[in-house]
Amino acid sequence: MSVPDSWYNLLADFPLELPDDLPSPHAAGGLRPQLPAALIRQEMSRAREISIPGEVMDRYLRWRPTPLRRASALEAALDTPARIYFKYEGDNLSGSHKLNTAIPQAFYYAKAGAKRLSTGTGAGQWGTALALAGGMFGLETVAFMTRSSYDSKPYRRVIMEMLGCRVEPVEGNLADALAAALGETRNAEGTRFATGSGEGYSLLHQTVIGQEAASQLSDLGERPDVVIASLGAGSNFGGIAFPFLGAARRSGGGVRAVAVEPAACPKLTRGRYRYDFTDASRATPLQKMFTLGSGFATPPIHAGGLRYHATAKIISALRAEGAIEAAAYTQKEVFGSAVEFARLEGVLPAPEAAHAVHGAIREAIACREEGVGRTILFCLSGHGMYDLAAYDEFQSGRLDDVVPSDEEIERSLALLPEVVA
Amino acid sequence: MSVPDSWYNLLADFPLELPDDLPSPHAAGGLRPQLPAALIRQEMSRAREISIPGEVMDRYLRWRPTPLRRASALEAALDTPARIYFKYEGDNLSGSHKLNTAIPQAFYYAKAGAKRLSTGTGAGQWGTALALAGGMFGLETVAFMTRSSYDSKPYRRVIMEMLGCRVEPVEGNLADALAAALGETRNAEGTRFATGSGEGYSLLHQTVIGQEAASQLSDLGERPDVVIASLGAGSNFGGIAFPFLGAARRSGGGVRAVAVEPAACPKLTRGRYRYDFTDASRATPLQKMFTLGSGFATPPIHAGGLRYHATAKIISALRAEGAIEAAAYTQKEVFGSAVEFARLEGVLPAPEAAHAVHGAIREAIACREEGVGRTILFCLSGHGMYDLAAYDEFQSGRLDDVVPSDEEIERSLALLPEVVA
Repeated sequence: MSVPDSWYNLLADFPLELPDDLPSPHAAGGLRPQLPAALIRQEMSRAREISIPGEVMDRYLRWRPTPLRRASALEAALDTPARIYFKYEGDNLSGSHKLNTAIPQAFYYAKAGAKRLSTGTGAGQWGTALALAGGMFGLETVAFMTRSSYDSKPYRRVIMEMLGCRVEPVEGNLADALAAALGETRNAEGTRFATGSGEGYSLLHQTVIGQEAASQLSDLGERPDVVIASLGAGSNFGGIAFPFLGAARRSGGGVRAVAVEPAACPKLTRGRYRYDFTDASRATPLQKMFTLGSGFATPPIHAGGLRYHATAKIISALRAEGAIEAAAYTQKEVFGSAVEFARLEGVLPAPEAAHAVHGAIREAIACREEGVGRTILFCLSGHGMYDLAAYDEFQSGRLDDVVPSDEEIERSLALLPEVVA
Repeated sequence: MSVPDSWYNLLADFPLELPDDLPSPHAAGGLRPQLPAALIRQEMSRAREISIPGEVMDRYLRWRPTPLRRASALEAALDTPARIYFKYEGDNLSGSHKLNTAIPQAFYYAKAGAKRLSTGTGAGQWGTALALAGGMFGLETVAFMTRSSYDSKPYRRVIMEMLGCRVEPVEGNLADALAAALGETRNAEGTRFATGSGEGYSLLHQTVIGQEAASQLSDLGERPDVVIASLGAGSNFGGIAFPFLGAARRSGGGVRAVAVEPAACPKLTRGRYRYDFTDASRATPLQKMFTLGSGFATPPIHAGGLRYHATAKIISALRAEGAIEAAAYTQKEVFGSAVEFARLEGVLPAPEAAHAVHGAIREAIACREEGVGRTILFCLSGHGMYDLAAYDEFQSGRLDDVVPSDEEIERSLALLPEVVA
C-alpha cells in the first residue's frame, strides 16, 4: 500500500452543472488573479488524474499513507452486523487532514513568487497546517483566528507561533477571520490569501484520503456500502467520498455518501442552494452553494471547523442532484459517541471528526435493526487532543445543545444577495 | 513488516549479575505476593523469547507496528553525513510508549482476579495508558498524580477521567505519588499496584519497539551504529536498545546504546550504583540501582517522566559493566532541539522524548565534525501535544535551567539505606 501518485478529479466522472461565480456587487474585481495558475488549472480541469508534484509527494511521505483501521471493539459493543472501518487523518503535527492541501498550496504559492501567506482559521487546524507547510517552502505565515478559538484553544496559538506563524485574534466567526486575512493581502506586498477548504483545488488535494482508503480496503477484500464524513466547507467529505463516488459511477455500482453536519449549522439539511458570499467581506465573487447565509450567526459549538455558513460548490451540486445524503446531529449526542469511541478504540476524535463517528454509529445501529451487515467507512479527520476542555465540559454536564429556529434561518436567508441566476 | 510475536529477554544474551532485592528495614513483607505469577515468571525467565498472548496482540494491533521514519530534513539542516532514523511511539491515545506495558499488565492482573489497579503517575502518560488498558480488560483504575502535573497538565486529568479513571493529586514528586498508590492497595480489596517502568517485566514488554525497529531498518538495508533514548526509570531506553544490544552480543558485532537523562536528574552520570528504595514509602524491597537517593528533590523540570531518582536494575547493571553510555543535558538545550525537530520533521516531541532528539542531534553533529556517516536510531517515545504550555514558556524565554550541585547530590546519597550487600 502506498500513496497515490495523482489526485482524483470527480468532474471527470460527474459532468456536474457548476454555475459560474458572479462578481460581488460590493467589489470591482475578485481575488482570482492572486491564485497561482497551477491552482486555477486544477480547478478548471476535467482530467481524471492530476499528478502530485515530487516536491509535494516528498512531504506527503512524512506521514502518509495514513492508517485504515477496523473498529472491531466498537462493532462488538454495538452488537452490529456492520463492519466499520475508519481512515485516521490525525497523525500529523497539524492534527488533521488539512495538511493534505496546505502542502500543495504552499508549494504552488511559493513557486508563483509569494513571500507570505495569510489565512483565517476557526478551530486552528488549518492555521497550524498552513504554518507547517509554509515553513517547508520558506514562506512566512499569518493566521487570523476567531477570538473564541484564540481564547479557548491557547495550545493552538502556541503551536502556530512555534512554527513561526503570526497569530491575530479576530472578533466574530470564521467569515470575519477570513475577511481580516483578505484585508492583509491588500496591505502587505507579496502576501497571498490561502484557504483551507471549499475551493475545488482543496477538495482535489484531499482525495489522497479516499484513494488510499480504497486501496487499503481492496487489500482486505472490502468495498464500502456507505462512506461517512463530517461536513464543514467540504474538503474532508470530498476527500474521502469523491474517489468512491467516481468509481461507483464508472462501474455502474452504487455507494452511499453521507455528509454529517452539526445541527447548529445545518446548511445541507436546512439551507438553500443559492448564490452567496464566501466570507464576511462580501467582496469576493459569489458562489452558488448550499448556504444558511453569510450573515448566519452560528451558535458557539466546539466543532469550530464545521461552523462555516455554506459548503463547497461541487458538494452543493452533488446534493442538488441527489447524489449524496446529509444528516445533522446535536453536539451532546456527538460528544457522547466520541467518548464511547475513544474508550473502545483508543483514538480521541476532534469535535469536528466526532460528527463522522456519530454518523457511523447511527448507521451501524440501523444495520443491527435491519439485520443487514453493511460495510461502513468513515473519515476520522482529526484528533481531539487540543479539545479536552470541551470534553471536560461534556463530561461534567456543562455542555448545551443549541439548534437554530426556523425563524433564525429564514431571517438569515432573507439577506442573501439578489442575483440574476 | 509486522508486530513481533514475542517479547525479547536481554538476560538470555547478557548473563548480568543482578543482585537480589532486599527486604526494606521499614516493612515486614514486600509487595511481590501481589504480582501476578505470569509477571514474576517473566521477571525470572532466562528464555530469549517470551510469547505475547493473543489477547495482548489483538490490542497491540490497534496501533502497532508504529512508524519508523528517516529524519531527512533534519539531516539536511545539520549538514551531517549521519543517517538519522526515529521510531515514533506517540501515535496512540496514551501518547507514548507506556501503552506497550499497560496492556499486558492489565491483562495479567485481570486474569489473576484483580478488580482495580492503582498507580502513581508523574507527567500523566503512564496513568493515561493504564486507564485505557484497564478499560480494555474491565478493570477500574485510580491514578495518583503529582500535584505539579495535576495543576499544570489539566488535559491529562481530563483524558484519564474520560477513560473512567479516578485521579487524585499528591503533594511531592513521583516517589510520593507511588507511595500514595501503594497505600490504596492496602485500603481497598481487590486493588493491585501497577507500575509503568523500572521493573524487569515492563522493560521486557517494551522490546516490541526495538524488535520492530530492527525489522524496519533491515527492510531498508540498514543497521544502527548507535541507538539513543531518553532515560527515566528505563523502560523506553530498554525497549528500543535491548534487542540491538542482544543481537550485537550474539553476532559479535557492536552497537552503541546511549541513555539520555536530564541534567536536573542525572542518576547514570552522577549517581551511585547502590541499594535504594524505589518509592517514598520506604516499605518496598530495596533494589540495587544507579540512584541519586530516594529522597532526592529533583528540580521541577517539564520532563516529569524523567524525574525519577533511580533507574531499572538491568540498565544499572549494564551501566556498571560499561555496556551502555550515558549523557545528561539541560532543559533549554533540549527544548531548543525539540522546536527545531518539530519545524523540520512535523512531529512534536514530549519534553521527555526531546532528550533523545537532542542526543541524536549531538551525535549527528559529532558525525559531521568527524566526517563519519554513522546510522543513528532514536526513540521518539511520546508526543508533546499536552506540553504546549512548556513550549510556550521556552519560546517566550521564561524557562530556566536548574542543575543540582555536587553538595545537593552528596547530601541525598548520604541518606541511602545501610545494607549488607
